[in-house]
Amino acid sequence: MINHSSNNSASPPFTVEVTRGPMVESRHVVSAAVSDSSGKIVRSWGNVEDPVYLRSAIKPLQALQLIESGAADAFNVSEKELSLACASHTGEPVHVEAVTAWLDRLGLTIDALECGTHWPTYDPAARALASSGQEPTAAHNNCSGKHSGFLCTAVHLKESIKGYIDRDHPVQRRIVTVLEDFTDLDLSNAPVGIDGCSIPTIGIPLQQAALAFARFADPSKLSADRAAACARLQKAISKYPEMIAGSDRLCTAINGAANGRIVAKVGAEGVYLAALPKAGIGIAIKAVDGTTRAVDVALGAILDEIGILDDDIHRAIDPFVRPILRNRNNITVGEITATFND
Amino acid sequence: MINHSSNNSASPPFTVEVTRGPMVESRHVVSAAVSDSSGKIVRSWGNVEDPVYLRSAIKPLQALQLIESGAADAFNVSEKELSLACASHTGEPVHVEAVTAWLDRLGLTIDALECGTHWPTYDPAARALASSGQEPTAAHNNCSGKHSGFLCTAVHLKESIKGYIDRDHPVQRRIVTVLEDFTDLDLSNAPVGIDGCSIPTIGIPLQQAALAFARFADPSKLSADRAAACARLQKAISKYPEMIAGSDRLCTAINGAANGRIVAKVGAEGVYLAALPKAGIGIAIKAVDGTTRAVDVALGAILDEIGILDDDIHRAIDPFVRPILRNRNNITVGEITATFND
Repeated sequence: MINHSSNNSASPPFTVEVTRGPMVESRHVVSAAVSDSSGKIVRSWGNVEDPVYLRSAIKPLQALQLIESGAADAFNVSEKELSLACASHTGEPVHVEAVTAWLDRLGLTIDALECGTHWPTYDPAARALASSGQEPTAAHNNCSGKHSGFLCTAVHLKESIKGYIDRDHPVQRRIVTVLEDFTDLDLSNAPVGIDGCSIPTIGIPLQQAALAFARFADPSKLSADRAAACARLQKAISKYPEMIAGSDRLCTAINGAANGRIVAKVGAEGVYLAALPKAGIGIAIKAVDGTTRAVDVALGAILDEIGILDDDIHRAIDPFVRPILRNRNNITVGEITATFND
Repeated sequence: MINHSSNNSASPPFTVEVTRGPMVESRHVVSAAVSDSSGKIVRSWGNVEDPVYLRSAIKPLQALQLIESGAADAFNVSEKELSLACASHTGEPVHVEAVTAWLDRLGLTIDALECGTHWPTYDPAARALASSGQEPTAAHNNCSGKHSGFLCTAVHLKESIKGYIDRDHPVQRRIVTVLEDFTDLDLSNAPVGIDGCSIPTIGIPLQQAALAFARFADPSKLSADRAAACARLQKAISKYPEMIAGSDRLCTAINGAANGRIVAKVGAEGVYLAALPKAGIGIAIKAVDGTTRAVDVALGAILDEIGILDDDIHRAIDPFVRPILRNRNNITVGEITATFND
């Protein structure tokens, strides 16, 4: 639920409050920008001008080269695989099997993945893997689909498949070019960190990130090929939402229930990017403290503010965006709510 | 590392910053109070006057009745079990076996535990349990040691062992009395929430929480029996630090390495309480956004500020209080540091 309170300062951040019984227990501060595809900032809260690492939220734009290079067509990349190329997945069998099959078509094995290894992030999947006496591989890494897309592009373009995570590799350089196209920024001096899966992550202000996703939402002013690639990714994500995340995840719930009206992707450290294709709107959100629970609730509140959520979408996403907190005995102990301070 | 910057406002909160590459990625705000046993606030940052749920950080004081009632002596409760009674443990076999054996001595089974069930919080323990084809029980609940202590007290005093989690049960009423004794507060109108394990959690300002732990640290003005009970719990926690938490946990690292000079306990939603017995000092910390990584780093920074950390303690706790962030390929990508704003 959103409570509007008066505040005269321009664009204050909004807060996400964790309530337990009669009292707010914890409080998050959130910045966000809503842009149209001309770069007009329709709404903003907090700091939208300083660079933010967009982390995995930017994956749909990182996946564009897979289509634009011709690699997707050359290797018969399916819509399921396109969604997986944009994923931070939960390491469930459906994801791991898809990655393995895709790499096999490229003539590669999971040894080619340079993302590193971790246990599935969906706990039941991790326990099931352990129960079967197995250890995780790089295919279980939440970024293995994106890395498969990188490898697919590199193989198609006859580029080195070793070191495709490095900043100077053509795969990573093409991502910078795409981001410059979509943000109108010169990123040559932007802050660059190393992401969890070892590729560069680039600092981009929320207002330009929102613009980038507005252009992804409304590609009418892009080239015909790029517009088609954006539409193809959106369709893939909406049709196979379980591939972009997995069980018990907001990304899967929202991309599935919105049926193309919202295309949204989470990133580590409290980032969400969303594209509203029909409205031609992009949304970029950062929880200042980097927590996922805050940005999930913030995404729901902003989408509500924009008025795009119907009952079906609400039913699917409310467990994440209007969470009721229950304890170990399933007793309701609190809730998490957003409060706009404007 | 602590950087002092100038700021003229009284007691501003301090910040914990998560850095990735050249840029701060996320930022936490932390409030804290340092008190002596007379109630003098030696240092404070941020809001120390509004109530905070102390959650599991208050467990050492919740465990006092186990000794003061005579139950610990009547049932030959070991030092290991006393540490466990103060624990938020990781659900490893050492914890589960100790809980089961203790309940057995009381003539009870794990069915008597009213804390609810969850998988071990230490992931390798959860996976090992799954591998062996088992499901978790209430003994795996991180609070099962505290609940065993409650049951031990109730059995000894011939109170109902059903409903010992309820606010009106003598076990919970004695906790309120202890907290009123230690904080000098009338808690009859304090905010009360329901904790993860279903017992009441009471809102207490950080300055009084720090006072409570200062009195726990320096019980010289308490009754001889209470002073002895405090000393006995401190000794148990220091001697068996693995029982108060478990593998890969700051509570185990710090209580072990400090060897009685620091007795510290974490609570959910970013709370830490610490007692410095030799200095007669209590510390109460709350990360405003409820994150553990922030309060861990804050605890280290405040202990450093006080000057109690030697090289041995630093070696043990620095992975938690001065963490270096490494990614899935074990590449260093960032760090978390505290900055005092005074």
